[in-house]
Order: sequence, then C-alpha cells, then structure tokens
Amino acid sequence: MTDSTLAAPTTDSALAYAEAHLDDSLERLFALMRVPSVSTDPAYAEACAKAAALLSEELNGLGFQARVAATPGHPMVVAHHEGPGPHVLFYGHYDVQPVDPIDLWRRDPFDPVIETRADGSKTIVGRGASDDKGQLRTFIEACRAWKATAGHLPCRVTILLEGEEESGSTSLEPFLHDNAEELKADFALICDTLMWDTETPGITIGLRGMTGGQVTVRGPSRDLHSGLYGGPARNPIQLLATMLGELKDGEGRVTLPGFYDGVPAVSPDVRASWDALGFDAGAFLREVGLRIPAGEAGYDVLEQSWARPTAEINGIWGGYTGEGFKTVIPAEAHAKISFRLAGTQDPDAVWASFENHVRERLPADCSVEFLTRGPGSQAITLASDSGPLSAARGALDAEWGRSALLGCGGSIPVVNSIRSILGMDTVMVGFALPDDNIHSPNEKYELKSFAKGIRSWVRILGALGTAGEGAA
Amino acid sequence: MTDSTLAAPTTDSALAYAEAHLDDSLERLFALMRVPSVSTDPAYAEACAKAAALLSEELNGLGFQARVAATPGHPMVVAHHEGPGPHVLFYGHYDVQPVDPIDLWRRDPFDPVIETRADGSKTIVGRGASDDKGQLRTFIEACRAWKATAGHLPCRVTILLEGEEESGSTSLEPFLHDNAEELKADFALICDTLMWDTETPGITIGLRGMTGGQVTVRGPSRDLHSGLYGGPARNPIQLLATMLGELKDGEGRVTLPGFYDGVPAVSPDVRASWDALGFDAGAFLREVGLRIPAGEAGYDVLEQSWARPTAEINGIWGGYTGEGFKTVIPAEAHAKISFRLAGTQDPDAVWASFENHVRERLPADCSVEFLTRGPGSQAITLASDSGPLSAARGALDAEWGRSALLGCGGSIPVVNSIRSILGMDTVMVGFALPDDNIHSPNEKYELKSFAKGIRSWVRILGALGTAGEGAA
Repeated sequence: MTDSTLAAPTTDSALAYAEAHLDDSLERLFALMRVPSVSTDPAYAEACAKAAALLSEELNGLGFQARVAATPGHPMVVAHHEGPGPHVLFYGHYDVQPVDPIDLWRRDPFDPVIETRADGSKTIVGRGASDDKGQLRTFIEACRAWKATAGHLPCRVTILLEGEEESGSTSLEPFLHDNAEELKADFALICDTLMWDTETPGITIGLRGMTGGQVTVRGPSRDLHSGLYGGPARNPIQLLATMLGELKDGEGRVTLPGFYDGVPAVSPDVRASWDALGFDAGAFLREVGLRIPAGEAGYDVLEQSWARPTAEINGIWGGYTGEGFKTVIPAEAHAKISFRLAGTQDPDAVWASFENHVRERLPADCSVEFLTRGPGSQAITLASDSGPLSAARGALDAEWGRSALLGCGGSIPVVNSIRSILGMDTVMVGFALPDDNIHSPNEKYELKSFAKGIRSWVRILGALGTAGEGAA
Repeated sequence: MTDSTLAAPTTDSALAYAEAHLDDSLERLFALMRVPSVSTDPAYAEACAKAAALLSEELNGLGFQARVAATPGHPMVVAHHEGPGPHVLFYGHYDVQPVDPIDLWRRDPFDPVIETRADGSKTIVGRGASDDKGQLRTFIEACRAWKATAGHLPCRVTILLEGEEESGSTSLEPFLHDNAEELKADFALICDTLMWDTETPGITIGLRGMTGGQVTVRGPSRDLHSGLYGGPARNPIQLLATMLGELKDGEGRVTLPGFYDGVPAVSPDVRASWDALGFDAGAFLREVGLRIPAGEAGYDVLEQSWARPTAEINGIWGGYTGEGFKTVIPAEAHAKISFRLAGTQDPDAVWASFENHVRERLPADCSVEFLTRGPGSQAITLASDSGPLSAARGALDAEWGRSALLGCGGSIPVVNSIRSILGMDTVMVGFALPDDNIHSPNEKYELKSFAKGIRSWVRILGALGTAGEGAA
C-alpha cells in the first residue's frame, strides 16, 4: 500500500490545507489552553464552562450541530455532523490537571508558548498542551481541513468532549446511559494515548484491566510489647507479609488459583508489530535502575508489561515506622494491592480470589477487612484486523512512513464505559510522548505531534470514509 | 521451712521495726517522688541532681559511705556499708519517665498520694511510685530497719543508683568500667521487676536477650507507575513481604539456619514453679483479643513467652499509604525487626543470619541496607539452685506464704552490663504489678507491694547474711 493509493485527491487537498493553516490551528489550540479548565478545583468551574462554550461555538461554526450539555458536574460538549461513511464517535476531554507545584513551571501554565530546542525542534509548552487539549484539537483541525477543502466530512462524526476526565469522570457513565441513543455509532475514536517514539506512530489495541483495594489484617485487640507477648501473640505484620509473599511464586507468577484463565497468547500480527520496534528491554529496565525482568518467567519484558496480568503491592504499613526502634506487636497491618488484568479475566472474580487467598491464611482468632477501590475494569483487546483498525493503520503508515506500533497501555476507563454502555469498540490513536510531562509541571506537546497528528486524522477520516463506502 | 526457722531474732526485730515505721518510710518515698527527676528532658537536670543529693545524704545518714559521682550525663549515687556476710551490689535508678500526656493524670504526677479503693486496698499514685523510686526504696528501708534494730547490716552492701535508666543509660557502662574495682561484689541485687500477682512474689531468673534493626530493600531508582512498569519492574514491597514471610514457617518456627542452637530446655525446677502458677493461657490471650498461641508448635504459652527465642516484625512501610489508591511501584520498602534471644544465642550471629536470609533472596539488581539498633544483648539465665537465689526464694516464701515464681522477662540491659563488666550475676526481686502503669499516666505501686517489699528485703538480707556466714 503506497501513499498515492491511500491519499485520494480530496485527502491530498485536506492535507495541504492543514499544512498551510498550521499557525491558525496552533492559535486555536493556544486559545483553548489559555482557559484554566482545572476540573478538580471548584474555583475553576467557570473556566470549565468557558472551555465547553468555546468548543461548542467553534464546532457549530464548523457546521456541526453542537451543544453544551449540563451534568451534575462540569458540562459535556456534544456535536453531530453528517457524512457519507461510517458513523464514528470521537471522545476527548477539555479539562486539565491542576498545576501544582507551580514553582516548578518555567512560565505561567496557562500562557502557552512554543519553545525551540538547540536542535531546532519545537514544542508547545503549557497545561493541556498534550493531555488532552492538544490531542483533541488534532482531530477537530482535521475535520476543519476536510470541511474547508471538500465541503463535507468523509464520515458521519459525533464528538463528545468531557470536562471531568481528570477528576474521576463522575458524570460520564450516567451521561452515556441517558444519551445512549444519541451517542451510539459504529465505533469510537480517542486521541488520548502515546506514540512509541517521535518517529513511530502508535495504535493502542490493548488496555490491561484493573481491580484492587486495601486489606487490613487485625490480630491483638491493642498494640502489645513484644518483650511480654513476643512468641504467643499473633503479629499481624508477619501474617500479612506471609500472605503477600505467597501471592507470587519464585517464577514471578501470581499464585491465585485460576488467575491466568482467559489470558490469551499475543497474536502473531501484534507480535510482529512489537518485534519491528527493536525494543531494547535492557535499556528500558536500566532507565529505572533495574536489570532483571521481575515478571513471569517465559515472557519477555514487552509481554510482561502489555499482555500479561500482574499483582502489585502499591503500599504497606503497620507498627512503628518512625525514627529509632519500638518493640511493638501492632494490632493491625495494612496493604494496598492492585491487579492489572488481561484477556477475559473478571475483575470481581480476581478480587474475590485474592480475598479468598487472605482468608485461607487467616488464623481463626484474627480478622480481616477489605476495601475495594471501586468497580474494576476488564481488559480491552481489539482485533488487529478489524475494518476501522486496518484503515487507521494504513493511514498512519502513509503519514509516518513506518508501521504503527500495535501497543498496549494501562486502563482507560472511558473505553470500558463506551464498550459496556454503548456497545462499541474504540480505536485509540494518539501522538503524545512518554516525556510530555502530563500531570506534571512544564507539560508539553511536540509541534511535530500536533502537525502530523492533524495530518494523520485527515488521512484516517479519509480512509474510514473510503472503507465505509466500500463496506456500505 | 517455716517462718520461725527463717526469721532469726534479729530479722524479727527488723521486720517489726519496718512494720511500725511504715508511715515514715512512705514519707521518705513521697519526698523522693516530689523531685521531678525526668532524665530525658534537660529542663529537669537540676531535679535529677537534687534526687541524687537527697539519696546520697540519706545513705550517709544511715551509716553508708555515700557520694554523688558526676558523669557526662546525670550523676550516680554510690554508697558502701560494711557487713559480715557476702558482698552485694544493689542497683536501682532514681530517674523517671516523662509525664506526657499530662491531661490523662488524675492529679499532679509529682504530688504523690495514697488512694484507697472501694475494697479497702491502698495504692501509691504518682510518677516513680513503682518504677523505680518505690522499688528501690523498699531496699533502702530494709537496710534502715536492720540498722535501727541490729545496729549493723547482715551483708556488706554497695548501692549504685543511676539517673539515666529511662534515657538510654549512656553513662552506665563507662562508669562500670571506670569504677569496676569499687563496684565488684559477690553478686548483684535489683528491685525493678514484677511480682506474678498481688499474692505471688517473683524472682526473675531469665531475661531474653535482644538484637534487631531496620532493613531497607531498594529496587527501581524511582517510584514507578504500575500501569507502565507493573510486571517487569521488581516491586520492593513484594520482595520484602516474601523475605519476611519466609522468616517463619507454618509452625511458628524461625527459619534462620541454626537459629535454635544453644536454646536450652526449661529445667524441671523452673518448670515446677511455672506449673504451680496454674497459669491460664486462654485468659492471657483472651485479654488481648486472641485465642490461638502463635509461637512455636510444641511449646506452651509460658514457654513461648519466657523461654523460647522469637522474631518479631515491629514495623513495616513502603509505597502509598494515604487515603484512596495510587498505583505506584515504590523505589524502596522498609521494616523494623527484633529478635528475642534465649540460652547462648549470640545476638551478632543472629542478626548476621537475618542479613544473610535477606541477601540470599535479593535479586542481583536490587540492593539492601541494614541498620542495627545498637549492640544486642545475650539472654541471661540464672541457675535456680545458686546460693543467693536459694536464700532469696526462702525469704520470699516465708514473707508471702507461697513459693516465688521463677519467672522470665524482657531484656534489662544493666543485668548484661553487670555480667559483662563486673563479672557478676544478678538476683532480680521486684514487687511491681503488670497494671502499675509504668511509663504511663497515673503510675501506681500497691501499698502492699511497698510494705511487704520492705519486709521481703529485710528477710532476704537476713537470709543472705546467714547463708554467707555459713559459707564463710
């Protein structure tokens, strides 16, 4: 498949328009970034409303039927545009993370700027540059290029922009339920994920699921002095250490019975995409001070990270933890545990299995309390050969001159919500980089990501339209 | 052995004197308790000096050659009195614990009072009532009774009173080294331990030794997000949990190789004394909310507490321990561990064996740091049939009308110092009770403990004198 077969004349025109009007696109991104739409802080509620209004007006100006839809929290923007191809739902979020610690920013986080590095590369700096204002704007600007050149969009497009993604998406699931008929499409598109590196685009086809919670093991009714009670009195820290130590075997495998049921092997197509990366597992570990992969024996580092489920102890505490020493046997000990899930592993069943693992090891005179971190999420795995995914792969290959990585990432709850409530799969294409400082000071987005991101969506829309027409 | 055979006429006279002058003894205890000799707080340095001076003057008045001996910290009181029998070194401490939290005291901690309970029993309330002003005074008042009635002491007595016991005894070992010739005696006496209950006196013949420290296990060079690194990145909490979980087997035994070497069986004589207690192991555990002894299988609760060594995790921490959840793989995890030792277990060897246990389980790309809690102490076990111990047992049996428990307790570092520096064993006789609130608000000492404590020492001094004369 060559560039010329993919880029029909209309796609070429839209690409040329996007290229020629990049400065205008940037100015619209800056205008959005100047609105401090921090969703966690009630002081910025008006700014969130302003960002929603700005986007709604802009989409109306582009020929969408757009509206700001109130929720119990920050509003949604919903916009519809007719088109000949398949019906796609694009999801993004206009809210941003808080800016603390403000001292570490090189400049005002809400006064975006383009910085030029010594090597001439340019980067957009400011809160939301990458997550998700820069990324969602690549899609809107691609729509603009199509409209400006072809006068239409190649697909029927619905856009949903959320204002609470950084504060728990409290209103999202009720909103999807209440507006399911309006939002249902053939599939969803999201631009909130990573590229592999500055040269290699990425499509996220797998998201590990998640479940987890907190466990408190209680023994004596009060803290005891180990000089008096050491020996006969059960020590909850010892008990918890034993329970958690036995959660993995010497080969890095989780020991919960049936834990690996429903975890599939990586498909040859996806494996080929990973092999093409020339991934340096040694360098990956070295960068964080490690050398020996700690995951399941028999799987390489990419499989351990992307395809295999895991159990992680995220926190542990109990007894005396201050300076010096205190010979205490504490009344209780605590840990926070999370499980990353793959394939069809059921989050509730995995957590129940963990609770059972603990209870089986609990002496009859001790007690345990569990606190889950809320509903878990199942893993998401997309078929690498589906129509929309194939269209997106072809478009990205054409734009970037190399095959897109079919990668995997952490949980993105909205993808689960879209699947469970709207019954749709999601194609995740993003242009962020691991060093974008999202959620941190000096957030940035490569100008190359922005420019080629717009061009990538121009091509994807074109390819989807063609594929859709072909399929229709 | 009946009361009349033990109590020679001189002992009888001293007992009668002690009984008749109990109110004066109490007034002298109160005078000492009114001096706020809190050793940890530099604000009370003058009070410590005043307590030392008060005791030195009093002992001079009793016919001792007494002096206040300066140290880099609070001073010692050293006093000598000639006598016909063996030479005994009595050790006590005049310093007390801080009084925080002051709100929980029923009255001024340094304004002692006698409180009468509904059942008519009386108790002395105030800081130091039990630990150790009340206890050390039982010995001094017994010496007074002997002097007042017989005009001499039955033994040669050296008294050493420390002012830093509650603040780490920093000056004690150097002082023992520097004054070893002056302080060496045939054996030592200490009154700083417990009775079994209000009816049953106790001689502490075993002290478990102690070693311990802190372990820090390090994995990644920084905290990692478990969504990105979960699987291939080593989790130090998981590692530490495994190491600590494997420190004990399913039977409550410590798994360190050779750990139990040199741990003796309990002698039949001591075992008989324990059996005579009618100890209710179920009630002992129930009182702290437990039911199932957690120590080594095959040993009963008293053996687990008193005679068997143990390993206890006194604290553990790592990762995210706040409200809610954070999917972190932390760079490090920590624990504080202590070992109670028995028999001839070597504290340094046990700690080295623990370090080895950790190192054997440490992946080559992780690191570990150990911090010991300072020099460990070996266990102390006294032969139950030694001359001084037999004399003390006989005297206590006579005073209390029942056999003294030959009990075991936690580490008392001064006993190790006296053994290692002065080459002497220590007979530990005390009249404190487990509910005396030592180190806590509303510290108390039973009036019965004080009165019969003085009488007990009158008898012990008499018995030692007789035994010494017989042996000489």
